[in-house]
Amino acid sequence: MDIIVLRPDVTDEQIEKIVKKLEAKGLKPHISRGAERTIIGVIGDTSKVTEDEENAIRAIPGVEDVVRILKPYKLASRDFKKTDTVIQVDNTVIGGKRVHIAAGPCAVENRVTLLDIAEKVKASGATFLRGGAFKPRTSPYSFQGLGVEGLKYLKEAKERTGLPIISEIMDPRDIDVMLDYVDILQIGTRNMQNFKLLMEVGSVDKPVLLKRGMSATIKELLMAAEYILSRGNEKVILCERGIRTFETATRNTLDLSAVPLLKSVSHLPVAVDPSHGVGKRELVGPMAVAAVAAGADMLLIEVHTNPEEALSDGEQSLTPEQFKEVMKKVKAVAEAIGREV
Amino acid sequence: MDIIVLRPDVTDEQIEKIVKKLEAKGLKPHISRGAERTIIGVIGDTSKVTEDEENAIRAIPGVEDVVRILKPYKLASRDFKKTDTVIQVDNTVIGGKRVHIAAGPCAVENRVTLLDIAEKVKASGATFLRGGAFKPRTSPYSFQGLGVEGLKYLKEAKERTGLPIISEIMDPRDIDVMLDYVDILQIGTRNMQNFKLLMEVGSVDKPVLLKRGMSATIKELLMAAEYILSRGNEKVILCERGIRTFETATRNTLDLSAVPLLKSVSHLPVAVDPSHGVGKRELVGPMAVAAVAAGADMLLIEVHTNPEEALSDGEQSLTPEQFKEVMKKVKAVAEAIGREV
Amino acid sequence: MDIIVLRPDVTDEQIEKIVKKLEAKGLKPHISRGAERTIIGVIGDTSKVTEDEENAIRAIPGVEDVVRILKPYKLASRDFKKTDTVIQVDNTVIGGKRVHIAAGPCAVENRVTLLDIAEKVKASGATFLRGGAFKPRTSPYSFQGLGVEGLKYLKEAKERTGLPIISEIMDPRDIDVMLDYVDILQIGTRNMQNFKLLMEVGSVDKPVLLKRGMSATIKELLMAAEYILSRGNEKVILCERGIRTFETATRNTLDLSAVPLLKSVSHLPVAVDPSHGVGKRELVGPMAVAAVAAGADMLLIEVHTNPEEALSDGEQSLTPEQFKEVMKKVKAVAEAIGREV
Amino acid sequence: MDIIVLRPDVTDEQIEKIVKKLEAKGLKPHISRGAERTIIGVIGDTSKVTEDEENAIRAIPGVEDVVRILKPYKLASRDFKKTDTVIQVDNTVIGGKRVHIAAGPCAVENRVTLLDIAEKVKASGATFLRGGAFKPRTSPYSFQGLGVEGLKYLKEAKERTGLPIISEIMDPRDIDVMLDYVDILQIGTRNMQNFKLLMEVGSVDKPVLLKRGMSATIKELLMAAEYILSRGNEKVILCERGIRTFETATRNTLDLSAVPLLKSVSHLPVAVDPSHGVGKRELVGPMAVAAVAAGADMLLIEVHTNPEEALSDGEQSLTPEQFKEVMKKVKAVAEAIGREV
Repeated sequence: MDIIVLRPDVTDEQIEKIVKKLEAKGLKPHISRGAERTIIGVIGDTSKVTEDEENAIRAIPGVEDVVRILKPYKLASRDFKKTDTVIQVDNTVIGGKRVHIAAGPCAVENRVTLLDIAEKVKASGATFLRGGAFKPRTSPYSFQGLGVEGLKYLKEAKERTGLPIISEIMDPRDIDVMLDYVDILQIGTRNMQNFKLLMEVGSVDKPVLLKRGMSATIKELLMAAEYILSRGNEKVILCERGIRTFETATRNTLDLSAVPLLKSVSHLPVAVDPSHGVGKRELVGPMAVAAVAAGADMLLIEVHTNPEEALSDGEQSLTPEQFKEVMKKVKAVAEAIGREV
Repeated sequence: MDIIVLRPDVTDEQIEKIVKKLEAKGLKPHISRGAERTIIGVIGDTSKVTEDEENAIRAIPGVEDVVRILKPYKLASRDFKKTDTVIQVDNTVIGGKRVHIAAGPCAVENRVTLLDIAEKVKASGATFLRGGAFKPRTSPYSFQGLGVEGLKYLKEAKERTGLPIISEIMDPRDIDVMLDYVDILQIGTRNMQNFKLLMEVGSVDKPVLLKRGMSATIKELLMAAEYILSRGNEKVILCERGIRTFETATRNTLDLSAVPLLKSVSHLPVAVDPSHGVGKRELVGPMAVAAVAAGADMLLIEVHTNPEEALSDGEQSLTPEQFKEVMKKVKAVAEAIGREV
Repeated sequence: MDIIVLRPDVTDEQIEKIVKKLEAKGLKPHISRGAERTIIGVIGDTSKVTEDEENAIRAIPGVEDVVRILKPYKLASRDFKKTDTVIQVDNTVIGGKRVHIAAGPCAVENRVTLLDIAEKVKASGATFLRGGAFKPRTSPYSFQGLGVEGLKYLKEAKERTGLPIISEIMDPRDIDVMLDYVDILQIGTRNMQNFKLLMEVGSVDKPVLLKRGMSATIKELLMAAEYILSRGNEKVILCERGIRTFETATRNTLDLSAVPLLKSVSHLPVAVDPSHGVGKRELVGPMAVAAVAAGADMLLIEVHTNPEEALSDGEQSLTPEQFKEVMKKVKAVAEAIGREV
Repeated sequence: MDIIVLRPDVTDEQIEKIVKKLEAKGLKPHISRGAERTIIGVIGDTSKVTEDEENAIRAIPGVEDVVRILKPYKLASRDFKKTDTVIQVDNTVIGGKRVHIAAGPCAVENRVTLLDIAEKVKASGATFLRGGAFKPRTSPYSFQGLGVEGLKYLKEAKERTGLPIISEIMDPRDIDVMLDYVDILQIGTRNMQNFKLLMEVGSVDKPVLLKRGMSATIKELLMAAEYILSRGNEKVILCERGIRTFETATRNTLDLSAVPLLKSVSHLPVAVDPSHGVGKRELVGPMAVAAVAAGADMLLIEVHTNPEEALSDGEQSLTPEQFKEVMKKVKAVAEAIGREV
């Protein structure tokens, strides 16, 4: 049931217009005239009323507000699927008892460095390798990634270490080549509402790590997931990576409350990227640990053997030694709350 | 000149490493040891230092901060080009004395309605027709636009009214068909940092209306324009359309101060979209007038002959009669500040 | 009528508990069991349900959400009082056809400078003199204002120019001395929710200019006004002065849409402070003009004869010459929309 | 050293004016003329330059920007005091190895309920009792607290349980009565920049828990602490309690990255209030645990024996049973990172 709140000056004609619209959708309006406001309760399956139809009702001059009771996402909701979604990648699963750690450089820069990083993060307990071959950069003058060459290095790193690969797709035209090389397709924060791209990854059989837009609400994140799910791809991992706020002391504000919130309203696994979330190396460790404590199923951590020479995000990358220390605390906290790394 | 601020515990080795990096770029470091902090002034053409190289310097443990003096955008800046950019479309120009009004429906819904709206907004003084054929929608269940069919109706509306067409491009694969039908390519707020799309529209000879991302800073908007300009397309119109803030009483917060600010730091024309900026029909008029007073070169206003039946954004669309009234005030204010409509 | 949305797993006991709470308030619950959610419509005078009682209902485990239909403010609302509130100060009124301009220095610094500024702004058409004697400063090391000495200079400036005085009160203990010297008590942005101070100014017979908190919603601003109104002081002027957002290119983001919005939901006059809103001198003029176009009843503009020597806010202060130029445009735009300055 | 960036059109006269201002402060200007910008490096003890003097320099037309290298807070900074501040309260300390838990009702409602809650939270391991006697409420129609009567109940609860008391002070006129009854004075989020109140609590010998304003930056929080410290009171506990963002699914966005950040730039202990931070009972537990993992020295958790009857904040209060469960996880995680509860 939804509620339509009417203005004090609503006319009978306007009410009639609303009633007709509702009845045309097979819904039953129930009018309550109060002392200060008249409202219309809408009885029936209101999930059939689209956002567009809702807005059309709002557009009637006598309408003050329309209150929707049901959530606008369906397939992504816990109401739709009660049990946690568990996503198989190679011989492991995401969304179970194990907390996964995806580590690696922001961008793939060259073969030797990547292989070196991959082996080191594997040795410290990472279970996935992350690295960008196509890089979304604020400036057209910044390094834009190695492209397919980078994907090849990632595949070689997987062959050596066994770590499955997470890498970002930026262009719907790259879908085929990405499928050949990566295990999890990442949708970056700037593309969370690139609906054409969402449709594309929704049509393939490959897990998608969907990063929250830097100014996206929880609801919008779930609507973006819904785009993917509604196309048939059920393997979506939601990822909190910091939102944009007034605070400039950190790169973004990592919203860890999104973790338990998402897990309560949705059945999808939830990842956290503390590296982009804070943007400062010395804060990555404490926030990685806190993310696990908050219930994250996966962490994405930037690691570089030589952050001072990194082609992107050197400022927030851990060295392999720092990563090793962080992993110790991550493990200890995971075990303290009954999980494992 | 840029400045590198060092931590109190910086080592001589770290300073030497920075000095070498700078000298390798042909820059001259000037070290000043103060009571509380040592800093390095960087002398020479620091515009050669990319954001990536800056971050690599930040990644050196002894570095506390790097302060860039120069703006990261060049071609978009008033420093680069002193005179206002004026963009010719058919037989009119954007960025001159005339304030342009682009009016029309949020989405093209059908041929008859579009032609009707086009004629009515033309009669009230609109100088462009706006309307979406490809629609970015938060929900996968909402109306996604008529596609090419919509473009055809837009072209027919132009043939009848003479109004040039502004319409949104969402997918780089649509560039060729868009070029056939529209006069100004619109990049929507959700795609302001869809860099692949920016590159695509940067490579054609057609004006681009670039909407500010809903959480984009002024600097990021200009960097997005830089992507287009750096590919060779100099016809960029910047568009303020409301930013996302904590306030929920309006759909967005229309940042009108962006208008004089953009015009002071950039030479590009500036448009304002009060319809999306506020999302409430009764506020559109006052904000349209205020935008002109603030110095806007163009307004985008949603008009629908029957907002209550609109397939999208009915809530914020003006009726043709309301649009006519708004136009009267817009004209009066434009003249009061020495412009014309 | 309000609506209580229940969780799918709500128990009969929980529903019964809610029903009893409502009936104890003399309200009639109307339960509708839908396919996906059960809701309770609350019939009767729900304005008797306080926010605390609403929260207590939310605290019942089976409750998903409580949707209030009525606004939480009453005396400040247009529903309560249909006609515009007009506030008399000396021989003029705020809230009528005339747009008032309150100009002056951020802080009163010394007698000679203040008198000089007062005479110059008067000559250019200002109708009020603004200036701080008690200054809220972010840093304990900044100039904190002249205190009572500053108030005396303000009074002398009024005697010379006839301009009524607006000045800020920061401490409830200063109420008596402020009443002796000023014509409008200003509540600053940092004190918008200093409820003890609001109660104090609500108990006197003197107009209050209430600045919006830098992160206050429109609703919270009106609730703060309600504190003053509910104590008996009906002379409240609401003031938009910029809100805090992620954008750092301006000091704040001036939310001009707040002007028409406040005037539609409330009967109180609305002022705008473009100086604090943008924080950059060259943007003050365009935004002052835009504020008038948006419908403001009053402007607050910082003017200083020598901004480079100002003890506070020099960066955003206009010189008297600049103020004079801005006033010309303000007048032209005011007349264009049927008002006068 | 600070840097003054000049506009391309700066005149020699303007430069001379700046040089004189600097020399008058005993500082040595060092002018570097670059290809695109001239800058002035300021050598000497620039901490003597106040924010007001900085703004006066900005007000000179030829000045584009002023870049301060030193932080505006001193006494609160880690530069000023290297070792962690440890605050003694009764026979325990805040800021050491032990993580403290302050639990209790949002508001003190009556004697019996308070004593009951106090005993229950004590039994589960709480080390402080929190509860408001003076309540800042958004609405003038909400419960405003019991006042001194509430303070008396708090004192009685301490006598029974031994738990020291944390309670909020809202009005500088209440300082004496608060000193008689409470062990830690709380400054609430809405009063973080109530400078008169900060001065008042800065002049007494009693620990102050300073809550971050809901839209305050880290820097502003430390400047507010500086107000207290500069008056002589060195016992300040900083408290993160959620900031205001665009996200409405939670009451605020709890910024846990503030914890390690504050601990790196300041020597003061850091508390976290997950109850206000998220505003939803089911999220309080995970965020309490995450706060400890992030390094918090103290937690503030709202507990009520009967949240459904609470006079305020029932929605976010834990029951004693829920609190007990949360405490188990808090202890486990504290131990996992080498601390104790």
